[in-house]
Amino acid sequence: MHIGLVGLGRMGNNMRTRLRAAGIEVTGFDPNPAVSDVADLAALAAAVPGPRIVWVMVPSGPITTGVITDLAAVLSEGDLVIEGGNSKFTEDAKHAALLAEKGIRYVDCGVSGGIWGAENGYGLMAGGDKADIERALPIFDALRPEGPREEGFVHAGAIGAGHYAKMVHNGIEYALMQAWAEGYELLDAKSDLIHDVTGVFQAWQRGTVVRSWLLELLVKALQEDPEFTDIEGYVEDSGEGRWTVEEALNNAVPVPTISASIFARFVSRQDDSPSMKAVAALRKQFGGHAVRKA
Amino acid sequence: MHIGLVGLGRMGNNMRTRLRAAGIEVTGFDPNPAVSDVADLAALAAAVPGPRIVWVMVPSGPITTGVITDLAAVLSEGDLVIEGGNSKFTEDAKHAALLAEKGIRYVDCGVSGGIWGAENGYGLMAGGDKADIERALPIFDALRPEGPREEGFVHAGAIGAGHYAKMVHNGIEYALMQAWAEGYELLDAKSDLIHDVTGVFQAWQRGTVVRSWLLELLVKALQEDPEFTDIEGYVEDSGEGRWTVEEALNNAVPVPTISASIFARFVSRQDDSPSMKAVAALRKQFGGHAVRKA
Amino acid sequence: MHIGLVGLGRMGNNMRTRLRAAGIEVTGFDPNPAVSDVADLAALAAAVPGPRIVWVMVPSGPITTGVITDLAAVLSEGDLVIEGGNSKFTEDAKHAALLAEKGIRYVDCGVSGGIWGAENGYGLMAGGDKADIERALPIFDALRPEGPREEGFVHAGAIGAGHYAKMVHNGIEYALMQAWAEGYELLDAKSDLIHDVTGVFQAWQRGTVVRSWLLELLVKALQEDPEFTDIEGYVEDSGEGRWTVEEALNNAVPVPTISASIFARFVSRQDDSPSMKAVAALRKQFGGHAVRKA
Amino acid sequence: MHIGLVGLGRMGNNMRTRLRAAGIEVTGFDPNPAVSDVADLAALAAAVPGPRIVWVMVPSGPITTGVITDLAAVLSEGDLVIEGGNSKFTEDAKHAALLAEKGIRYVDCGVSGGIWGAENGYGLMAGGDKADIERALPIFDALRPEGPREEGFVHAGAIGAGHYAKMVHNGIEYALMQAWAEGYELLDAKSDLIHDVTGVFQAWQRGTVVRSWLLELLVKALQEDPEFTDIEGYVEDSGEGRWTVEEALNNAVPVPTISASIFARFVSRQDDSPSMKAVAALRKQFGGHAVRKA
Repeated sequence: MHIGLVGLGRMGNNMRTRLRAAGIEVTGFDPNPAVSDVADLAALAAAVPGPRIVWVMVPSGPITTGVITDLAAVLSEGDLVIEGGNSKFTEDAKHAALLAEKGIRYVDCGVSGGIWGAENGYGLMAGGDKADIERALPIFDALRPEGPREEGFVHAGAIGAGHYAKMVHNGIEYALMQAWAEGYELLDAKSDLIHDVTGVFQAWQRGTVVRSWLLELLVKALQEDPEFTDIEGYVEDSGEGRWTVEEALNNAVPVPTISASIFARFVSRQDDSPSMKAVAALRKQFGGHAVRKA
Repeated sequence: MHIGLVGLGRMGNNMRTRLRAAGIEVTGFDPNPAVSDVADLAALAAAVPGPRIVWVMVPSGPITTGVITDLAAVLSEGDLVIEGGNSKFTEDAKHAALLAEKGIRYVDCGVSGGIWGAENGYGLMAGGDKADIERALPIFDALRPEGPREEGFVHAGAIGAGHYAKMVHNGIEYALMQAWAEGYELLDAKSDLIHDVTGVFQAWQRGTVVRSWLLELLVKALQEDPEFTDIEGYVEDSGEGRWTVEEALNNAVPVPTISASIFARFVSRQDDSPSMKAVAALRKQFGGHAVRKA
Repeated sequence: MHIGLVGLGRMGNNMRTRLRAAGIEVTGFDPNPAVSDVADLAALAAAVPGPRIVWVMVPSGPITTGVITDLAAVLSEGDLVIEGGNSKFTEDAKHAALLAEKGIRYVDCGVSGGIWGAENGYGLMAGGDKADIERALPIFDALRPEGPREEGFVHAGAIGAGHYAKMVHNGIEYALMQAWAEGYELLDAKSDLIHDVTGVFQAWQRGTVVRSWLLELLVKALQEDPEFTDIEGYVEDSGEGRWTVEEALNNAVPVPTISASIFARFVSRQDDSPSMKAVAALRKQFGGHAVRKA
Repeated sequence: MHIGLVGLGRMGNNMRTRLRAAGIEVTGFDPNPAVSDVADLAALAAAVPGPRIVWVMVPSGPITTGVITDLAAVLSEGDLVIEGGNSKFTEDAKHAALLAEKGIRYVDCGVSGGIWGAENGYGLMAGGDKADIERALPIFDALRPEGPREEGFVHAGAIGAGHYAKMVHNGIEYALMQAWAEGYELLDAKSDLIHDVTGVFQAWQRGTVVRSWLLELLVKALQEDPEFTDIEGYVEDSGEGRWTVEEALNNAVPVPTISASIFARFVSRQDDSPSMKAVAALRKQFGGHAVRKA
């Protein structure tokens, strides 16, 4: 099998390596000539034998739409584009329609695994027609972790289902991380009683209900910096968390922990909180409570 | 009528003034001789004609329990103690029992109104036996705002009911303040669109569903400092808010907004957040995401 | 002054009455001939002397956009359209642009007050250019409550600011209602102690920090049905609450109480909760905990 | 080694089996003679050679305190009691003091693992003096899972630290479960797009950030009943979750996801929600919104 791969940033580059290691020939394109195999998308289309499969792994939003548009110009009827970036699932129908005008097939795929995926394989969630998914199975098999296929890959549903599932995955991930963080703060706050916070987390790695990869990472992080002295409590959020809450609102699904985890990140990035200024000002008004001068 | 009043801090002092203005004779005791009418509780007991009514208005916790204990020693059977401090409602049964040994009656009373109460009157919630409540009605009438009695005073229930009602009042108050604060931050965040944040709140004072005293105070605070530049987003919390959530847990009552408003205050007082350090550390571990160095 | 008014449902009809009572001539149009003053928008345009002002008060979404589009066809350069419906603020730029093609001016106006507005006046928040706002002041003055103009009306900012302010108003309103509801449940849960729940709320109407119109309504509701025996805990939500959270996400504003109040409404409408089924299933798996069979 | 074990319910019984399988002699006592090895605690004390170790595994609260009190009467100076039940950590100081009067040592131990612990081993968190912990290591080693000791056991800190750590463990567990449940509901709500909800969870078991034992259990539960048709969304909560929030309040630690997960359980058990009745009543009052008749 010989496929095209557009986008050779950290993720795309690692995926090319993993695909090649599995015996799949890959022609990669990236605007950065230092990592690109070909000069442009036309050259990529010329290099990959048809009917072609091209995996797109570029930043979500206008860049992804731009690449899809450009691919529509150089690919042919019957080719298949797999969009593996962090796109909002509502983009997929648009991208699929854009390619369908030229008779090009479309599959969306959510990819989990971060920097560890290169080594461990990626968790994959795909959306699209059954025939298109089956055609791409060797690629999915190369990228996913070893073990039973269904434990690292799913054909989740129609076009958009892959990115929707990935969005929910990230929403859950946000809440899981916040749960761990609250537990950490509870142990950390009781230093008169708890003398080995790292040890407590470490001891949960076997036999407990909460054992998980995030726990293992937390233990690793604590072992490197047991008091988190070198790290600030400042946390970015990517689009998926917000989209999850937005979709929850659209579907009347209550998501108190997912939303709480996102709000905690918002607060973490504020130098001072406008809302807490307002609360302080109110207390001063009605109770004569002292306020801290800014 | 001639009553005793123990505790002449800001609240007690204002209440003495208001009671006297209503024609009730008050003998006040406070450890601070500058404000006290008598030298000690024995002198207070001697000065107030029996059967006595003594209002206790001292800091909640051990100080209140101490005063109640001391009063048990100097008062007589048939006297009535009204405990008006910010006590936890679970203290009242204990205090009532302590006095009951000597045949002294007990009423608890939650008092709302802050610094404005001196002028506007206090919202009062009392707990105890009907006969005891009725005996103290002239005092309640003097302290409560003008208008129909039932709009500023309630016999809420058994001993402890006054402080329980006041606790719930404060729990609601916390959530109301947080709601206003979130609205403020939403308006403040959209300064490209909203050119007059103060004006928006001001315009809600008549005709809207949200009109209220807290809104009026928010308008006042914004008029004094429209950007809250002089105030830090740092907010203390008193016991009542926490007790409300504790009671919610005891009674399996969901209180998502009250608890959120308390947690927001906790966060407002942290220089850095241990839990958000943990989240940042986790993101770094699995995604190689950059962290801010502390 | 003589203006046009499109939409004579409950709100529009009441507003026509209030405008006429203030001496403003109103030609109203509604698809329902029983309440309409004219046969169609063309007739309305013919009836109102230019330069015209037309107030639009129809359901938000496609119906509002449809009316704006139709008005663009019958109005003339220099006319002014005021959109007073419950539209999302992001619609306003679109509507303004649509009318601007014909040289027609645009103001958006958020309207609060519900069924009480007819009698008490409406809280009004307007967005648009200063000259357009000033031109419409007699209308705003007729609709707003009596008292100082700035306590019932605001020129909040640019086009869209009126609907944005109204959206935030409703977000706050949701959280305020939830705060009151949690307080109610806390008092209701403690019936062994609290013997007069209605009385407690009633006693907060004067002198307390929490006094407000919502409290008065809660007292009224409890007086009509003290145990809420006739009412189900099932609550709809309109768009504004969801939009508020969406905007909070767009602007990285933490809104824990507003979101909690919306999620509580979502849950209130579920016959059974899919998420709580999942929790029950998990508990059964790891702990052998009994589950309730559906 | 030969120890005593008080309490042979589901947990205690499994632990006796596991201890014996590891070569530790166990004399167990339970009020139920069908499972008990001896007639009473005196007989247990007589059977176990001194200096004795006795593990207590009975329901938390008065029953545990009762057993500790009874053991103080039959044990001797230098004996060691390990309290392994689901006790609140604040009980431990009391229990330790009670035994210290007789010169009996005390260790508290939080135990995780549920019904799977018998086979997989239990996660153990112990509090107490170093010498006492070391003396009991063979027992901990027999009960904990295979693998490195520090991945299934920790000496967390002073007396009470074991139960505190277990309490935090359960608080985290609650929030993790709720996070998974919200994700499930989000996938379930989008059945037009997501055709294989079970498959999605299954595919997250390898390579993803969220892989964990709870995920595996969720997959198992969904495979048994893919729509959760046989299970009601009704969820009990044990003490630990509530204690976690209580401790968070005591230590000013914000726990938005843990509290949200507990409130969700409270709501799940209500036939109708008093607070949502109040919200519905308020909406009816101000907006004339229709309510559902109970």
